[in-house]
Amino acid sequence: MAISPDSAIEVSALRWVPEGPRGLVKDLRVRWALEEAGLDYRVRLIGAERPQGYEIDQPFNQVPCFCDGSVRIFETGAILQYLGEKSEALLPRQQEAKYRAIQWTYAAVNSVEPFVQFRALLNSFWADRDWAEGAKPTFDELAQLRLSQLANWLGEKQWLEDRFTIGDIMMVTVLRLAARSGQLDAFDNLISYVKRGQERPAFQRALADQLAAYDQNQPQPQGEAA
Amino acid sequence: MAISPDSAIEVSALRWVPEGPRGLVKDLRVRWALEEAGLDYRVRLIGAERPQGYEIDQPFNQVPCFCDGSVRIFETGAILQYLGEKSEALLPRQQEAKYRAIQWTYAAVNSVEPFVQFRALLNSFWADRDWAEGAKPTFDELAQLRLSQLANWLGEKQWLEDRFTIGDIMMVTVLRLAARSGQLDAFDNLISYVKRGQERPAFQRALADQLAAYDQNQPQPQGEAA
Repeated sequence: MAISPDSAIEVSALRWVPEGPRGLVKDLRVRWALEEAGLDYRVRLIGAERPQGYEIDQPFNQVPCFCDGSVRIFETGAILQYLGEKSEALLPRQQEAKYRAIQWTYAAVNSVEPFVQFRALLNSFWADRDWAEGAKPTFDELAQLRLSQLANWLGEKQWLEDRFTIGDIMMVTVLRLAARSGQLDAFDNLISYVKRGQERPAFQRALADQLAAYDQNQPQPQGEAA
Repeated sequence: MAISPDSAIEVSALRWVPEGPRGLVKDLRVRWALEEAGLDYRVRLIGAERPQGYEIDQPFNQVPCFCDGSVRIFETGAILQYLGEKSEALLPRQQEAKYRAIQWTYAAVNSVEPFVQFRALLNSFWADRDWAEGAKPTFDELAQLRLSQLANWLGEKQWLEDRFTIGDIMMVTVLRLAARSGQLDAFDNLISYVKRGQERPAFQRALADQLAAYDQNQPQPQGEAA
């Protein structure tokens, strides 16, 4: 069990979310990295209404934010790099390989995620907007282009570079969103890559711990059913 | 003059772009960081048709990519971090401050840029799509929320943290795109922040060198005008 209330490392997470975003909230990335590194952590559960002053830790009011003693970081890419400096299981020590891994964390959140995310929103939060249907071909084209470029890069490799790194943690979690909204259907190797990531014991522990919090914090019913 | 054909550091850039994207192409970030650090570099100019094999250096077919001897990196955030390890002018050495700076490079490209960029596209490349007008309120709301959260964080500070870092290079270049499409009009402190960044001599040298390449490589006219 990697969750320990006495750990110096703290990660913020949501107390409860509905079915849709389950398994996609971004504290999963940090939990996964901590599990890969074998580091204990404690969780600060917060609600949709953020605690007063939360924007000092996370100016965009999101989860997760992270602290380890006096180190205070938001943005999952930066948190994973910090953990990578603690554990070679996450980030190679050799300079060339280290920056290859780091570049993939940026590629995941800048060159892939926005396209996948906006396309997914057209089927979910934005599905009822009158412009959504018309926008789909444009966003499909953008997302499919980036995914095909990524699939070409990956080819038959197991991971983005010659070993598993924080770059894969970031990319697999981005692609899980794409998979859920059907965007990976044309890319068998990306589907296998996501599966490979999800099969890692560290991923499974991280996901189970994230979901367990939601189960333990079901919202109270608003009154007796009629 | 920081451009030197004998430098070990190479940055790819576009030979020529039309008026619209001038000053926004992302090699500017890397040139700026190199100028702040006082490092020489050579430029590899490429055209809209990429050289054969370019996707090995840049799987998403964009500029810039970067090499320094055997270190080969794409993604500007990763390149700026690599340069930050070479120069304290870019990245503090103290652990807490270092990761604060790094987190802002991710915030720029993940928490701000996508929202600003998609909103800007509705006025440019996407202006003639029949869904574009209808989508503007949704994208306005998203971009303005992120920008207001950033403005709240910045307040009266000069930089995002207590000194200039690679986080500011990334954020200022993202906000320049926002400024050009009128998205900063409600945020005086963000306008001043961009101005502060642009007034730095290193920024001005970087921009001049980027633009000079376009001037020197005007496309040949396709024949005599009628």
